[in-house]
Amino acid sequence: MTAGPVEILPLGGIPEIRPGDDLARLVGDALERAGGLVEGDVVVVAQKAVSKAEGRLAQTHDTVRLILGEARAVRRRRGDLVIAETEHGFVCASAGIDRSNAPGDGWAVLLPRDPDASARGLRAALAARFGPAPAVIVSDSFGRAWRQGTTDVAIGAAGLAPLLDLRGTTDARGRVLASTQIAVADELAGAAELVLGKAAGVPAARIRGYRVPPGDGSARDLVMPPERDLFP
Amino acid sequence: MTAGPVEILPLGGIPEIRPGDDLARLVGDALERAGGLVEGDVVVVAQKAVSKAEGRLAQTHDTVRLILGEARAVRRRRGDLVIAETEHGFVCASAGIDRSNAPGDGWAVLLPRDPDASARGLRAALAARFGPAPAVIVSDSFGRAWRQGTTDVAIGAAGLAPLLDLRGTTDARGRVLASTQIAVADELAGAAELVLGKAAGVPAARIRGYRVPPGDGSARDLVMPPERDLFP
Repeated sequence: MTAGPVEILPLGGIPEIRPGDDLARLVGDALERAGGLVEGDVVVVAQKAVSKAEGRLAQTHDTVRLILGEARAVRRRRGDLVIAETEHGFVCASAGIDRSNAPGDGWAVLLPRDPDASARGLRAALAARFGPAPAVIVSDSFGRAWRQGTTDVAIGAAGLAPLLDLRGTTDARGRVLASTQIAVADELAGAAELVLGKAAGVPAARIRGYRVPPGDGSARDLVMPPERDLFP
Repeated sequence: MTAGPVEILPLGGIPEIRPGDDLARLVGDALERAGGLVEGDVVVVAQKAVSKAEGRLAQTHDTVRLILGEARAVRRRRGDLVIAETEHGFVCASAGIDRSNAPGDGWAVLLPRDPDASARGLRAALAARFGPAPAVIVSDSFGRAWRQGTTDVAIGAAGLAPLLDLRGTTDARGRVLASTQIAVADELAGAAELVLGKAAGVPAARIRGYRVPPGDGSARDLVMPPERDLFP
């Protein structure tokens, strides 16, 4: 899809985010230190920073109750591990609730209520400041069925089609590809994770050189519809 | 984990791979055109190129029979879609068998018999030619439970720990992270997919600037062990 290199740049020097912080300004300041934006850039922001700025925090020691409050269904449970479906439709551990990097003991960070809206807000603010409107992805670390470890995926998106649809295009031999949709927003989120770091205070990254599939899709486009979900 | 940028460079100009081709030489030629290797580089090679070089091709119109021959278990089936567990333990559509970009009508490309060994062979050959031994990942496009679209993941690995284990490390507030393993080999494979392109004849990429977790892990480290698999 791309002839040249893709560069993933960590956006550092962003202070610990607190409720009410202007995240777009802080990410924008980091972008400015990194030379700003050009047309086609993607900005990936970690969910935890978005959630904190939006005040999506809860103080309780009853994690299970908190999870059940955020979940619309529990898919599996084994000991402390709860695989839940969130109100957004995402299937993940603990309905996306996480205590690491929370503001203090007993505190937990919840997913943004509408991560697509968070992404749209960041995109608009960054476009107003820099000119070019970046694609914006809000990322979170999700576990997977059948595979160990987490990968970062897109839970919010603005200014791109999260799925690159190759159906109807042809392979190198001219044969039509039967059914190929690539979850590029998830691959972009995972690529950004390589520079984000869990403990390094780098909550955002800029990806340059990737030819973003044009569109105004939502990260909910990435959610498997119930009628096609073989692992309910 | 990384202070500087990460660069993903497509390795182009590699001809269509045929059985018996010296893939390490062809990838090495492309690397040489791109300036070679430095310590810490990661080379990601698409499974299809590896399989073709290794002659892992079959000619039949009976796809289902082919899938059953490559699978050790069928997990789900809906119409033409068969989610199968391969002999390696990977859970994926059609046991990894694919007809796109196959050498001709009726032909299908199978997964390498031992993708870790393929990765180790490429790593050794590239180290002998260039000096620095790159981490090598053999990647393939897998679907996921609950999410639409494929992402590229690691089905073979050499010269790195596929899982970055953060258990026991601390977050920004000094709190111990309870349980965090990041599937960095999958994120590297997905990042490489952003430049590989399905139809562009770019079967490999070089990733530079990522601090690879040291180790000699196998991509089978990424397979969820049966006793922890909640979605059998």
